[in-house]
Amino acid sequence: MTMFEVQDADFETRVRAGFAGQNVMHVFKAEMTKVAPGEVEIQMPFNPELTQQNGFLHAGVVTTILDSACGFAAYSLMPTDAAVLTVEYKVNLVSPAKGDYMIARGRVAKPGRTITVCTGDVFAVADGKEKLVATMLATIMAIRNRADLKN
Amino acid sequence: MTMFEVQDADFETRVRAGFAGQNVMHVFKAEMTKVAPGEVEIQMPFNPELTQQNGFLHAGVVTTILDSACGFAAYSLMPTDAAVLTVEYKVNLVSPAKGDYMIARGRVAKPGRTITVCTGDVFAVADGKEKLVATMLATIMAIRNRADLKN
Amino acid sequence: MTMFEVQDADFETRVRAGFAGQNVMHVFKAEMTKVAPGEVEIQMPFNPELTQQNGFLHAGVVTTILDSACGFAAYSLMPTDAAVLTVEYKVNLVSPAKGDYMIARGRVAKPGRTITVCTGDVFAVADGKEKLVATMLATIMAIRNRADLKN
Amino acid sequence: MTMFEVQDADFETRVRAGFAGQNVMHVFKAEMTKVAPGEVEIQMPFNPELTQQNGFLHAGVVTTILDSACGFAAYSLMPTDAAVLTVEYKVNLVSPAKGDYMIARGRVAKPGRTITVCTGDVFAVADGKEKLVATMLATIMAIRNRADLKN
Repeated sequence: MTMFEVQDADFETRVRAGFAGQNVMHVFKAEMTKVAPGEVEIQMPFNPELTQQNGFLHAGVVTTILDSACGFAAYSLMPTDAAVLTVEYKVNLVSPAKGDYMIARGRVAKPGRTITVCTGDVFAVADGKEKLVATMLATIMAIRNRADLKN
Repeated sequence: MTMFEVQDADFETRVRAGFAGQNVMHVFKAEMTKVAPGEVEIQMPFNPELTQQNGFLHAGVVTTILDSACGFAAYSLMPTDAAVLTVEYKVNLVSPAKGDYMIARGRVAKPGRTITVCTGDVFAVADGKEKLVATMLATIMAIRNRADLKN
Repeated sequence: MTMFEVQDADFETRVRAGFAGQNVMHVFKAEMTKVAPGEVEIQMPFNPELTQQNGFLHAGVVTTILDSACGFAAYSLMPTDAAVLTVEYKVNLVSPAKGDYMIARGRVAKPGRTITVCTGDVFAVADGKEKLVATMLATIMAIRNRADLKN
Repeated sequence: MTMFEVQDADFETRVRAGFAGQNVMHVFKAEMTKVAPGEVEIQMPFNPELTQQNGFLHAGVVTTILDSACGFAAYSLMPTDAAVLTVEYKVNLVSPAKGDYMIARGRVAKPGRTITVCTGDVFAVADGKEKLVATMLATIMAIRNRADLKN
């Protein structure tokens, strides 16, 4: 795995503050369980209130924690004057999102001054065993000088 | 716009039952406001509890109603013995998801026996004016004979 | 269809010069058959030398003309000091790329100063009838001040 | 890395025959340099005839070898009665496709009876050093009983 150099020694504080500011994560009871340079992990419990018609977590819910994991992985490498925005992502859904809890892991594949490419996976954990649920390839952007976005 | 022929005259009942079975739609206070052959519309109010750090709806929340709009648009053209599953989607996020409410519109671009391709858009509505927030290109699959999936 | 305003009245000259500079288009015998603000059409004859194992044009060949159609559609709206670069695209392949010739149509879905989102389709034409072969959702970027890129 | 079990002991012969049947690979002077269960590598020399306006290989050319690497990686795990078809792919283009030659590496991320998800990368090699050019996330399908497709 590539090692990334951060531009802000205090990246973890900045990343955790960003995550804490995402209200939807409280509704999903999601927690940020790891922050490293170019790498973020988010966990959330299975929740029958957030399911689709077959009783699995809705693909959009899975995408929510996966997008945050990827976005904050990119953000961890950005300088302090940059806000982070998701330009687009693709998600393949490969098995049902059911189990005890979900782990989303996002990591930077290619950092850049403006555009950062990330990959991420969500695993369902049941009886301590992980199973791949979804995989993402995302384009994240560093934005400067936009009044409506937080650095 | 292409007109599609349905294989099940009672497709609307089936689609609405599927939507009613998605618990997450109740949490999001989303409603299915249109069902036509190969076309579905879902609306949800803006909700500050479902936001990211800048106060916009999280991309994953926007994706949730967009995926359901596309999935049920595909499902409307499927026969009664098929369950519907999202294989994958790509979403471009083009402006902040803020406003009075969101409208997701999904439609079939190419129907198929197994694979259906759909496109969809989410618009933010503020003061009665629509603004494009996100656009999706999705691959939806008809599944037969799987015990854990509802037809 | 949305009408777009150009920033460069002479956009067509610029777009056609860019296309003429793509050597691969000569190998594919592709021609730019339409240039309008935010809209480009490219045609190429079916060519058995560019096929995959079933005798259809390779998906990558189809993607080549589709990417150029989308990229130049975006480029038509850019100012004269910007170079154009494809950040990423997704392509769904919906029917075999065979017939007399192919038409790729790219159009801007959402223009932006830095990021432009485009959609595009390739149709196979046989006996004068068009059939959808592939559909693209692409992210195109305006780049300024990079020595290795042509405006 | 996950190890995959093949369903056809002679998968390499089948994969190499499929690749040999892709005429476009001859035009691109591409070679299949590795075949393993769920993993395929394709190389092609840099070719100024296949470039876009800045003198880099066109994104569609890069996508061509990347799609074949992913498709044949999936095909290596399929049974002998299945033909292989690309449903869709997403490609992020992260640096210019220039150098001495390109290496495309495709691998299976999640095999399935009908749908297989693959990831792949293209690296540009210059002076013996590899640089990431593009990354793909693809959906590949096993097709049975279709007269126009080769198993």
